[in-house]
Amino acid sequence: MARRGNSEREADEATEHLKVPKGLAGVSVTDTKIAKSDPDGTLVYRGYPIGEIAAKAGFEETAFLILRGVLPTRKELNEFRDSLASRTKVDKRVFQVMKELGRDSHPIDALRTANSALGSIDDARGLKDQQMSIESKMSVLAANCFGVPRGSSPKSPASGVGFAAALLGMLTKRETSDYEKWVFERVLIFYMEHDLNASSFTVRVVASTLADPYAATSAGLAALKGPLHGGANEAAMQLLLDIKDPARVPEYVARAFKEGRKVIGFGHRVYKKFDPRARLCKEYLREMLKRRGDGEKLYLLCDSLEKEMWERKEIPPNLDFYAAPIFYSLGIDIPLYTPIFAASRVFGWMAHYDEQVSENKLIRPDATYVGPEGLSYVQISER
Amino acid sequence: MARRGNSEREADEATEHLKVPKGLAGVSVTDTKIAKSDPDGTLVYRGYPIGEIAAKAGFEETAFLILRGVLPTRKELNEFRDSLASRTKVDKRVFQVMKELGRDSHPIDALRTANSALGSIDDARGLKDQQMSIESKMSVLAANCFGVPRGSSPKSPASGVGFAAALLGMLTKRETSDYEKWVFERVLIFYMEHDLNASSFTVRVVASTLADPYAATSAGLAALKGPLHGGANEAAMQLLLDIKDPARVPEYVARAFKEGRKVIGFGHRVYKKFDPRARLCKEYLREMLKRRGDGEKLYLLCDSLEKEMWERKEIPPNLDFYAAPIFYSLGIDIPLYTPIFAASRVFGWMAHYDEQVSENKLIRPDATYVGPEGLSYVQISER
Repeated sequence: MARRGNSEREADEATEHLKVPKGLAGVSVTDTKIAKSDPDGTLVYRGYPIGEIAAKAGFEETAFLILRGVLPTRKELNEFRDSLASRTKVDKRVFQVMKELGRDSHPIDALRTANSALGSIDDARGLKDQQMSIESKMSVLAANCFGVPRGSSPKSPASGVGFAAALLGMLTKRETSDYEKWVFERVLIFYMEHDLNASSFTVRVVASTLADPYAATSAGLAALKGPLHGGANEAAMQLLLDIKDPARVPEYVARAFKEGRKVIGFGHRVYKKFDPRARLCKEYLREMLKRRGDGEKLYLLCDSLEKEMWERKEIPPNLDFYAAPIFYSLGIDIPLYTPIFAASRVFGWMAHYDEQVSENKLIRPDATYVGPEGLSYVQISER
Repeated sequence: MARRGNSEREADEATEHLKVPKGLAGVSVTDTKIAKSDPDGTLVYRGYPIGEIAAKAGFEETAFLILRGVLPTRKELNEFRDSLASRTKVDKRVFQVMKELGRDSHPIDALRTANSALGSIDDARGLKDQQMSIESKMSVLAANCFGVPRGSSPKSPASGVGFAAALLGMLTKRETSDYEKWVFERVLIFYMEHDLNASSFTVRVVASTLADPYAATSAGLAALKGPLHGGANEAAMQLLLDIKDPARVPEYVARAFKEGRKVIGFGHRVYKKFDPRARLCKEYLREMLKRRGDGEKLYLLCDSLEKEMWERKEIPPNLDFYAAPIFYSLGIDIPLYTPIFAASRVFGWMAHYDEQVSENKLIRPDATYVGPEGLSYVQISER
């Protein structure tokens, strides 16, 4: 086994591997037909610009597009909507599992555990049925993952109002206007898909073992627990509540940069000039506040932080930064913001699941061993 | 947005990416100091050959080596063993969650759900404590993930006998000899770590979001649900039970090749000549059967299948192929074989978790978009 000093052999071995940048940054690991984001601030879903989708399509229509690759006919859309709506009933044992977790549980832990339990309990059979069941129920689980472990009765979605309005109805106690419902639906559409983010890649890795969709979504939710992936919209809202006053923005930003802290809600791996989804959400936020007659205070705070960040470092806000004040203005509790993300992103996850298994190869990379070589066991008395 | 025919632009974009082989086959995505496997049939844990480890080290000693990078002193080993043994008590709510899943639940679903629930309920604080808690409790959850959903009372590990014997005691109803306990401990040692297999890579992807260890292990368990990664030892045992008689081996193998089916338990991504762990397990199996006076029937069946596979295609058996008849001979129910794998592999997962977060970069690859471009939304009435 001794290989020290055998540099020829080591050099040979090194060439067996293709070494790639850390974190797979800039490394294309697969082809995809689902979505494409460009640094110039464009995002397309299955070839359609996100701006057009946001202006004209509904949630189920977009979900159909993301999952099946084409816009649905009226008949297909109605079937898809009915199919989703007919699968919202969650076995009470899944809620019982959530309840066991107790009032200190983290909503994403509760959502992951409930989804994992669903994988054991759900009676959907076959890949398509299972996926549809998960897509439908994730929104019910998301709406309940904060309340049920804290003793609330499970909320059920209203019927006949569509996916987005039904979810919003479970999330907020107040009446919402048609415009507010429309805006919430846009935010869901924006959260649906963004190529190989960490959770979608996790879903593909698990799908590549040919694990079932419940297992794959459990893993996706596990990735969402990490602060480098999930939780950004919640943290962005906390930030806005902390700063409170536009007058305090310059001081806050100066201190953050001085202390080397990131300002949450700003910057994006792909979009260097602007995030097209954030731009649209900014407009929606302003209009929503205006129509409600709440005044523009929250909007002005966001706008002033955006301007300060751009003037100082040319870092643009991302989707999370403007989704957060929209959710807040809709009266949704902050711990539910990341679960909402999951309720929409699960459609993207399932599209990646399908794309992965349709031409599957197990995702199984190599590592380069750089540890010690040729050691011999030493008896414990000699250590 | 229209880009069709704009081939220059498309060519430019293509060069932004480094495209790598599908499934990341042969692609080194990280350095590691944990383990190294070579096609020539060698495997080292932290620089020590697996054969020496198997001959001389115990389970906790090897786990310490895998996790900390060095063999422990006597004092360190005692502390590590005590630390593991003192954390086996699982909150009864976790078992309650398992029970809710019911008698039709898949053991790996139950194990994943229980581990996920543990992440919400466990009171361990800090990364090291949480990891130690998971490592200790995974073996208790693994031993119970088949029985508890089917109405059995939770089994607890015996104290003072060490990790492997305590686990074996929960898994089998019969008395086992010292040699049998020693063999079971070797199999656990072999299952502990094998660089970037699909579940360990999944754990690293999730760890790279800085999600907690419970979330990461939930994702690892999700990957184990897939037949391309987990379940091979169970399927290998079913195969042996199906073939039954060495005389039927040639016919079975001939038919499998004719029908283009893989023979489970044979072949390995790394080891092309032999799997060093399988070789050792084969010896242990023979000796175990001999000492027990059970006759060599099961051994002879394995041996004849091994010879047939080698003569026809030069495909060697892997660890799962010889671990399965060892577990079977120890009186362990087949649905528990993959959970046993998890109870040991979790130590490797946690070593990968640590290595990932110690020099972290979010694992976030790119994909190459090959879908349609420049489409315009068409009103639903026009589709």
